[in-house]
Amino acid sequence: MEKIAEHKSFVGKQLRYRHRAQSVGCDMTFSIYLPPQAELGKVPVLYWLSGLTCTDENFVNKAGAQHHASMYGMAIVAPDTSPRGDGVADAEDGAYDLGLGAGFYLNARRSPWSQHYRMEDYFCKELIDLVESEFPVDGKRSAIAGHSMGGHGALKFGLKYPERFRSISAFAPISSASNCPWGKKALTAYLGDDPSLWAAEDCCELLKKRGNKAPKILVDQGDADPFLQDQLKPELLQAAATAGGADLTLRMQSGYDHSYFFIASFIEEHLRFHREHVG
Amino acid sequence: MEKIAEHKSFVGKQLRYRHRAQSVGCDMTFSIYLPPQAELGKVPVLYWLSGLTCTDENFVNKAGAQHHASMYGMAIVAPDTSPRGDGVADAEDGAYDLGLGAGFYLNARRSPWSQHYRMEDYFCKELIDLVESEFPVDGKRSAIAGHSMGGHGALKFGLKYPERFRSISAFAPISSASNCPWGKKALTAYLGDDPSLWAAEDCCELLKKRGNKAPKILVDQGDADPFLQDQLKPELLQAAATAGGADLTLRMQSGYDHSYFFIASFIEEHLRFHREHVG
Repeated sequence: MEKIAEHKSFVGKQLRYRHRAQSVGCDMTFSIYLPPQAELGKVPVLYWLSGLTCTDENFVNKAGAQHHASMYGMAIVAPDTSPRGDGVADAEDGAYDLGLGAGFYLNARRSPWSQHYRMEDYFCKELIDLVESEFPVDGKRSAIAGHSMGGHGALKFGLKYPERFRSISAFAPISSASNCPWGKKALTAYLGDDPSLWAAEDCCELLKKRGNKAPKILVDQGDADPFLQDQLKPELLQAAATAGGADLTLRMQSGYDHSYFFIASFIEEHLRFHREHVG
Repeated sequence: MEKIAEHKSFVGKQLRYRHRAQSVGCDMTFSIYLPPQAELGKVPVLYWLSGLTCTDENFVNKAGAQHHASMYGMAIVAPDTSPRGDGVADAEDGAYDLGLGAGFYLNARRSPWSQHYRMEDYFCKELIDLVESEFPVDGKRSAIAGHSMGGHGALKFGLKYPERFRSISAFAPISSASNCPWGKKALTAYLGDDPSLWAAEDCCELLKKRGNKAPKILVDQGDADPFLQDQLKPELLQAAATAGGADLTLRMQSGYDHSYFFIASFIEEHLRFHREHVG
């Protein structure tokens, strides 16, 4: 693991690392913010999963989260959104919603994706272990959040691994990957057309299954988001939560779009929500 | 004037415009944040000048200033750092510190720069008039701030036009353009070697001249900034303030570098400082 950037930020440190990742067979980069409290002992940690086209840096540069992470004493880890580098497959037409920057936080099963696109193994089995072993974070006090495709990832991992994450939040998540163009395209390419494989990647299915055993969930969605109706469909998430008895707070935010200006406007409330639930 | 972007941000609006600028003979873009209070009447305004290589967008995306501008009820205007477009000269070797992105907030006198590089006229005579006529800002309650080359610009304009700006602040400013490599290179290229022209572009000279009639000034400087000793030289600014009796608060910030992570860490204090002084 090699440190490739360090900046003092709100008394803490904004750090960036490159490491060889076995799970995906390539070098990966991730960013971690350590609040000043991490100088004194282990701190709770929020994992942030970004959306289509992003790297680990978008959230770090644009969300303004360090201010609040410093105040609430939480580390924030931001991984990349796909494998990268020579030999890693990309969409043949250079599409932004498949391949590089569009890993969808799953383990691909179909060629050519299955060689490197194993983002679930990378995140859940490799990165979290690395973070917990190398940094002063308390793994028992972890939470997960994300945006758009990364909101899908946060909901999926939070619901699939409830022992790992005490709370889940999302901005404008893809609510049901099986039921929107972005999701259908990615699941078809990465997994093929087996419905049982799709169900395991669908947050609404997972939410219904987990029911009232799901961690607490906070979702913010702008009502001026251009992807709201065709891709994001928060009404499906609400219906799944209601059906299963899960504790979901879905807030429609008037006038906000899909950008980081929306995320920045509400990130403090997400950090406060997670800080309360990680204890 | 054409609106090219609009995002809701902290209840207010982050806007971006393109307009034909007579002073520089090309299209220019600028960004403006309008806080929610601007719906009710005119608000005070902070002009932000960015550093080398920046456009109007760096500050908007990375400083996290909207949070505090919304709270304190201030508009923030961020212009570009140079003329742009077909026919606008650039450094022959593509250097980052001359030409595009490096206008140094002056009116160039030498060829090929003099045709478009008239950033003092653009900012002071054209952009401010446009902003005051098109947006709900109170020109009598204006302040100015900037970073690095833009810190130089903010100090220069704030000291040269004290009737326009009630307070001045800067992050890691070029304190004395006549006495550092960045400044000497730019002043030589844009103005030639007439010492009287250089003095009019040197913040320390202006500060000595203005003395205790200068607006209040706040400067933050990271002590881990790699440009501190060779380019920025805050000790010259302090000496000039002391010599002239100006009200300068220079704060050395331990461990901070030259990046937007530094700016974000202290931008709230700058907005509060300006909000107090614009009344």
